[in-house]
Amino acid sequence: MKITSTANARVKEIVRMRDRRARIQTGLFLVEGFREIGRAIDHGIDIEELWVCPSMFLGSNETTLIERANATVLEATEPVFKKMAYRDRPEGLLAVCRQFDTSLDHLHVGAQRLVLVVESIEKPGNLGTMIRTATAASADAVIVADQTTDVFNPNVVRSSIGTLFTTPIAVASSDEAIAWLRVNGIAMAAATPEGDTDLWDAKLEAIVVGSEQYGLSERMLEAAEVKVRIPMPGSEEIDSLNAAQSASILLFEAVRQRMR
Amino acid sequence: MKITSTANARVKEIVRMRDRRARIQTGLFLVEGFREIGRAIDHGIDIEELWVCPSMFLGSNETTLIERANATVLEATEPVFKKMAYRDRPEGLLAVCRQFDTSLDHLHVGAQRLVLVVESIEKPGNLGTMIRTATAASADAVIVADQTTDVFNPNVVRSSIGTLFTTPIAVASSDEAIAWLRVNGIAMAAATPEGDTDLWDAKLEAIVVGSEQYGLSERMLEAAEVKVRIPMPGSEEIDSLNAAQSASILLFEAVRQRMR
Repeated sequence: MKITSTANARVKEIVRMRDRRARIQTGLFLVEGFREIGRAIDHGIDIEELWVCPSMFLGSNETTLIERANATVLEATEPVFKKMAYRDRPEGLLAVCRQFDTSLDHLHVGAQRLVLVVESIEKPGNLGTMIRTATAASADAVIVADQTTDVFNPNVVRSSIGTLFTTPIAVASSDEAIAWLRVNGIAMAAATPEGDTDLWDAKLEAIVVGSEQYGLSERMLEAAEVKVRIPMPGSEEIDSLNAAQSASILLFEAVRQRMR
Repeated sequence: MKITSTANARVKEIVRMRDRRARIQTGLFLVEGFREIGRAIDHGIDIEELWVCPSMFLGSNETTLIERANATVLEATEPVFKKMAYRDRPEGLLAVCRQFDTSLDHLHVGAQRLVLVVESIEKPGNLGTMIRTATAASADAVIVADQTTDVFNPNVVRSSIGTLFTTPIAVASSDEAIAWLRVNGIAMAAATPEGDTDLWDAKLEAIVVGSEQYGLSERMLEAAEVKVRIPMPGSEEIDSLNAAQSASILLFEAVRQRMR
């Protein structure tokens, strides 16, 4: 079946899925792009529908991907596809997927004993980038505490380039996150400009990063075993980093500590 | 004078300044926000016009800022200001500034002997974030090689939160950048997944980072004294980092080496 009208009801439903309310109502979310859909398939994400626009394909492996998706395939014309796509340069592949379990219960602490905890992060691009960096650092999990940005936001999926599917993710309140870390004996290192320990001297297991605007909540700071600071030699000019940059610096300091 | 019409010719000119062509033609660029304009004033950026919308002010220090700007002040109604503003949440302050010197000649190598060189970075948000992180790391300069994103792009200014004015910036071809580094005796450390030296073992003076999509050019890689890699324990899942994350990790490894 080829959809040729941008007024098609299903097309409109997919456009609405950019809004959180529609994602909550349907329990679905969107994954766009070859790499991202590939990662979703590899990690057992349930794909309900796969929209394709063959004239926009960039490579020659799309056919294999489509077969592997094991989903209802719908074809769209370019104008229809562009209406649904949220990327600047669509690749002709858009999957409608079922949201997966993001409860703390399904997390396991692995060999790295490394968890990234982010609290009240607002910008989807920042959240997705942090998930991507945590994956590169081989973190056991990412806990999204006091969620303000829905992890199924298309821009989280995009900036995570699909690592949202590969690294276990949990969404919880800050209190639940603290309780889970305690039960699992994972020490919390809270990143704050008021920290008393330089990152190079801190035991980094659960790295806890807050929003750029408000920092970490009092209860996160109080619960943390260590308050970590990133010394900034340029602090006369700028005394804070973007939250995603702080997370990257801390995650790869944890990598250094484990490898050296 | 209070501008009340969104059809005002000057208002339209300011909206056009979001486009690179208009910035080149006029030699001007836009700076929005209290912090950003404050940094521009502190660092002697020439402000031609300051647009204000007092009903949108967030604080009480705007009057002092306006006096310090030493510029022609124009008042706009909220609808007019919102048309010109490029932020989601405008603060009622928008400066039209004269572009400053971005030639290599005005750079000086300081005590840190730390320079960030970025080649062919496309995304304004990434470029601005990298300038911000370089400033926090107290880098002597940022060299934008083979510029694809204009450093005067409003989103570079925004994501740099005005550190574009505090850390010396040069725009040059990659060949010019290499020549300048050689003349100044600054060793180049090129970041590449094919690097043979872990960042923790590399002398980090000029940190050279390429675009995420294409990596560094052959001539940058050949000119570098050392090819640096960031080991990624999670490389089975993801084998690259966002360019801004790589730059952050390398810059703060340079900070570690200098402080420890």
